[in-house]
Amino acid sequence: MHTIDLKNKGFRTDLVVDEINRQKQDKVVSKIIRKEKNITLEEVKINKDVASSWKKKEGIYETITFEDITDKNNFKEVEKIGIEALKRVLQEINFQSGMKILVIGLGNASSTPDALGPKTLDHVLVTRHLFFLGEVEEGYQNVASFKPSVTGVTGIETKDLIEAIKDKIKPDLLIVIDALASSSINRLNKTIQITTAGISPGSGIGNNRLEISKDTLNIPVIAIGVPTVVDGATIVQNTLELLLKKISYQLSNQDNEKLKLVPIQNQDYKDQKDILTKDQKEDILGMVGLLNEEELKSLLLEVLLPVNYNMMVTPKEIDYLIDKLSILLGNIINKSLHTNFNPTN
Amino acid sequence: MHTIDLKNKGFRTDLVVDEINRQKQDKVVSKIIRKEKNITLEEVKINKDVASSWKKKEGIYETITFEDITDKNNFKEVEKIGIEALKRVLQEINFQSGMKILVIGLGNASSTPDALGPKTLDHVLVTRHLFFLGEVEEGYQNVASFKPSVTGVTGIETKDLIEAIKDKIKPDLLIVIDALASSSINRLNKTIQITTAGISPGSGIGNNRLEISKDTLNIPVIAIGVPTVVDGATIVQNTLELLLKKISYQLSNQDNEKLKLVPIQNQDYKDQKDILTKDQKEDILGMVGLLNEEELKSLLLEVLLPVNYNMMVTPKEIDYLIDKLSILLGNIINKSLHTNFNPTN
Amino acid sequence: MHTIDLKNKGFRTDLVVDEINRQKQDKVVSKIIRKEKNITLEEVKINKDVASSWKKKEGIYETITFEDITDKNNFKEVEKIGIEALKRVLQEINFQSGMKILVIGLGNASSTPDALGPKTLDHVLVTRHLFFLGEVEEGYQNVASFKPSVTGVTGIETKDLIEAIKDKIKPDLLIVIDALASSSINRLNKTIQITTAGISPGSGIGNNRLEISKDTLNIPVIAIGVPTVVDGATIVQNTLELLLKKISYQLSNQDNEKLKLVPIQNQDYKDQKDILTKDQKEDILGMVGLLNEEELKSLLLEVLLPVNYNMMVTPKEIDYLIDKLSILLGNIINKSLHTNFNPTN
Amino acid sequence: MHTIDLKNKGFRTDLVVDEINRQKQDKVVSKIIRKEKNITLEEVKINKDVASSWKKKEGIYETITFEDITDKNNFKEVEKIGIEALKRVLQEINFQSGMKILVIGLGNASSTPDALGPKTLDHVLVTRHLFFLGEVEEGYQNVASFKPSVTGVTGIETKDLIEAIKDKIKPDLLIVIDALASSSINRLNKTIQITTAGISPGSGIGNNRLEISKDTLNIPVIAIGVPTVVDGATIVQNTLELLLKKISYQLSNQDNEKLKLVPIQNQDYKDQKDILTKDQKEDILGMVGLLNEEELKSLLLEVLLPVNYNMMVTPKEIDYLIDKLSILLGNIINKSLHTNFNPTN
Repeated sequence: MHTIDLKNKGFRTDLVVDEINRQKQDKVVSKIIRKEKNITLEEVKINKDVASSWKKKEGIYETITFEDITDKNNFKEVEKIGIEALKRVLQEINFQSGMKILVIGLGNASSTPDALGPKTLDHVLVTRHLFFLGEVEEGYQNVASFKPSVTGVTGIETKDLIEAIKDKIKPDLLIVIDALASSSINRLNKTIQITTAGISPGSGIGNNRLEISKDTLNIPVIAIGVPTVVDGATIVQNTLELLLKKISYQLSNQDNEKLKLVPIQNQDYKDQKDILTKDQKEDILGMVGLLNEEELKSLLLEVLLPVNYNMMVTPKEIDYLIDKLSILLGNIINKSLHTNFNPTN
Repeated sequence: MHTIDLKNKGFRTDLVVDEINRQKQDKVVSKIIRKEKNITLEEVKINKDVASSWKKKEGIYETITFEDITDKNNFKEVEKIGIEALKRVLQEINFQSGMKILVIGLGNASSTPDALGPKTLDHVLVTRHLFFLGEVEEGYQNVASFKPSVTGVTGIETKDLIEAIKDKIKPDLLIVIDALASSSINRLNKTIQITTAGISPGSGIGNNRLEISKDTLNIPVIAIGVPTVVDGATIVQNTLELLLKKISYQLSNQDNEKLKLVPIQNQDYKDQKDILTKDQKEDILGMVGLLNEEELKSLLLEVLLPVNYNMMVTPKEIDYLIDKLSILLGNIINKSLHTNFNPTN
Repeated sequence: MHTIDLKNKGFRTDLVVDEINRQKQDKVVSKIIRKEKNITLEEVKINKDVASSWKKKEGIYETITFEDITDKNNFKEVEKIGIEALKRVLQEINFQSGMKILVIGLGNASSTPDALGPKTLDHVLVTRHLFFLGEVEEGYQNVASFKPSVTGVTGIETKDLIEAIKDKIKPDLLIVIDALASSSINRLNKTIQITTAGISPGSGIGNNRLEISKDTLNIPVIAIGVPTVVDGATIVQNTLELLLKKISYQLSNQDNEKLKLVPIQNQDYKDQKDILTKDQKEDILGMVGLLNEEELKSLLLEVLLPVNYNMMVTPKEIDYLIDKLSILLGNIINKSLHTNFNPTN
Repeated sequence: MHTIDLKNKGFRTDLVVDEINRQKQDKVVSKIIRKEKNITLEEVKINKDVASSWKKKEGIYETITFEDITDKNNFKEVEKIGIEALKRVLQEINFQSGMKILVIGLGNASSTPDALGPKTLDHVLVTRHLFFLGEVEEGYQNVASFKPSVTGVTGIETKDLIEAIKDKIKPDLLIVIDALASSSINRLNKTIQITTAGISPGSGIGNNRLEISKDTLNIPVIAIGVPTVVDGATIVQNTLELLLKKISYQLSNQDNEKLKLVPIQNQDYKDQKDILTKDQKEDILGMVGLLNEEELKSLLLEVLLPVNYNMMVTPKEIDYLIDKLSILLGNIINKSLHTNFNPTN
């Protein structure tokens, strides 16, 4: 008998079941385009019907997941697959040679984990001014770039800045790069998402007024995002899930003599299927063990938010990671756009 | 009846009870020196007898805790109390005017959360070369500075570099500044520790060979540290503790009509006493709820480490925080050492 | 008898006499507003009649000249007089509390001598977004900021970017900060010019199409400039003039017994009047000695330009100077605009 | 008749004729090792006999001169010849695989034109710590690195810091990188000198006490220097020489009908032989035209120094140049030392 009922202690538990996974099965087209060693490219198309119920915007989403881009060979592989992904998205919006492109690096250049957008622009080849001079060789596109910084620095809404410049120079396509918040620790700095669905800078708030998208700007927008920060609640949630996975792993393998010889540091239960019964989960984690994903997230936020403990954090190696990621995204953009791009020096 | 016994599932549970808190009561001299608004200065003296059993080194420890130094007035208050703390430590080592001081900024200047040491040096007044020229006014001490960077960058052990320079210029006192790992999220970037007990760069490993201390260098060492990173296990542990505190808080106040009117965002249960029974904890968090602090930490590490998920993280505002903290520490050092220091411009 | 005639060797010598100094006497209002120790504030008003013949744009020009702002006290004095100058210009354009201001930092943040504009913005208080939130105290103006970077980086004309944003957020006043080329080595990093006459980024070319001014943007523009670079021809010209001044100084003082005791390093002939005859100048510097200012400049450019030797250069301490100057300009702007500005921390 | 005699107006004119060029002819071995397009590698050996009279230290000097390393292909060519030069010097000091190397980046990382040393180290592969771990593949040398900063920042003599670390880690070879002052504007950022003769940081003063060399440190020292700053007197001197060259060029070609068609911007008189008579020089530049190189330099310094106008300057593109040069030197060092170095990413 429980002496305390979490559900009646003021914690929100009436959350809908995970609509996303349910809907995925019937209406969303998701396919693995490529899977090589530790690198995967997955494509999802969300059409109008699904978009509203799924709370995701209509469009094509290419998601590249990878392990470690500080390794040289891995870096090259991810770059190759990233180019493939961006080209798929360019095709989706009917990109034609000769279109004028404005590449925008969102975020605050002075805040390392938020600097991915501006830092990527430092590696993007800009040619628009050379076209005016007639100095551009065959095989190069017309590219301009813009760093809108953030409202806290400029006093101006990012979307207003972008709209103003779009109206002035009239590009045919926007490519927008931003650092995102991650929904899980294993995606942090290990995922690139390229989509036609647009982006809302500085938020998952979904405030349409500030959204950078075809809907709000009337030209195609390709958004390229990498999750570089994660909140405390997500770290806790991921860890508790991992605890259950580890126990599942050990139960599954308790009669496996061979596995007993695997050193603990080599045991990989990240993708272990949950085999625990409801009772087992309750034994291990009490009422917390009985909450579904959304309920648990909600509970954690209610614990952390009132005392300001739900920090957004980033790995301590973030300076190095942003350096590598910005070079990677710069290469992906340059090599996807310019057929003759020759990236020496 | 439990269907799973955590203690027999390969998790280490044989940890000693928390010696630190127990010993604190009988042998360690701890006193609150100052407590103003949100700022506290606490002094602990650990003598030889206690040091070995407590796994802490002998010495005096001044700990300043504070809330927010991005607020101007708060910054000044923390600076004032920081100067008081450093002066207490200087007195402890019998600092005399005329002693030669070498200030060392440990850490990697290219990695934001690790850059506190080198960045602080940018704000420390250096005078040693002016003494050779006879250009120093009354009221200023002889100060040199050194940034040893990190072994991964130089190929040289930090302690070897410091020892080499110490032997060459023969200072009477080392002041060493470093960024630390935090043992709790509420200390992150909100605590300054000043101690005579030395420091082991890049670790809590306790590898004596690399320790920067009076024991290893034969001159007094004052270490100034600020925790700027925290690991995932600590975030999870702190959050689960906070869950129990929040429930304790709600149980304690369930008959308090006035409190029912306090908006949730104003409820402060950070320092709530735990009033839950063993059964209540088990109801809420299962077997995990029954683990003591060290057992829980150990369990979390065993879940996170084998899959490399125990990231060291830092708040996303770290660039701004390191800027402020390095100015703060620079001011504390300058104003504690030089009686005539006039920090304009 | 001369065997070579410079004037017929392809060097342009048909330059008009120095119109500026001549016209100054009759039609241009120039007055010294303040002169303290090494700091001078001079005001020049150029009206329509004069503007065209003088090749300077109509408007008020406040020029602060100073010696060394790395000295703390000097820094404060220059700041004080800079505020006075900016306030005079604000009055000239009938600045009223409540006007919306857009401050623009021209130049390339990645090129130290060109980074004055963007770096100054890092010290300018931005409030526009706070006005939307209703969070601004009495005594503060509505200020937004924008760094257009340079065309070589963005592919977009600076003036187009500024015009786009002006049209979008509709400020009542632009304040534009830029690094300038110096017309003499003794003004380099030692002069601030504040004017209503606008500015042409990246040039003295006078290409009106790219000019940032009231004429081109239809709202008042205050331009704040500091010369941070100088070309080789100017260095040579200044040095040859200085040679003649030094000889004038020595001739003037050859019977002055007291002066003979002045150590050479204390002799100050920077402002020495030229007392040399035409023959004496020819003796010293040959035909070159007979050229007037514009002719000499023209000759030097014809020597240096064809072989790409007329480098734009900057003092080697430029990083430190730009740091100080950007803080100085930030303070001058903040304290001139906001009556309650309290620049702590 | 001259009314003024420069030589009797207090200017030093009794300087010895240019010993360097004279001696070069008889005792110094100078040879062009390689000359490709705009890139030259010249080798000079100065032996004991010559060293004292030449005021240059004994040793081998490899000098690479080039035009523009912002061009990709040129960059690669200079790198290739730089590797050849460094390997010649390594051979001269009998470098053997297995020797321990300490690479030192002299200069102030916060001052762009002085940051070449520290910035180069950011591109030098450091392996010493990996040797301790046994993690180094075949074909890699044992390399440590150190940035001593400058005395004005640390309060410690650079040579003392280097000596202290040398004594501690006992390398077999020092490689020291520094930014130099240039003796002519056409060498500025366009010359790399590699020598066994050592270096005196922060000066051409020749203060032996602070010299970094085999004489002072008792192990082989290879110094790699690039001139990144030049003083005003040198700019003036070079320009006046260029004026005489241009006139020589025009006189030589005045009957050359073909040359008359060469546009002025394509005329290259940088290497024009001086064909002017003494009288012609006097006509053009008066007494100044009659001074030899050292006399002219001396005169200019006497004009500029007392009024602090002999600024050390650097081209305004210095940030970009230092970035490129530091990558170049890093590549040269890595590829010369490690036979298996594979510089991807």
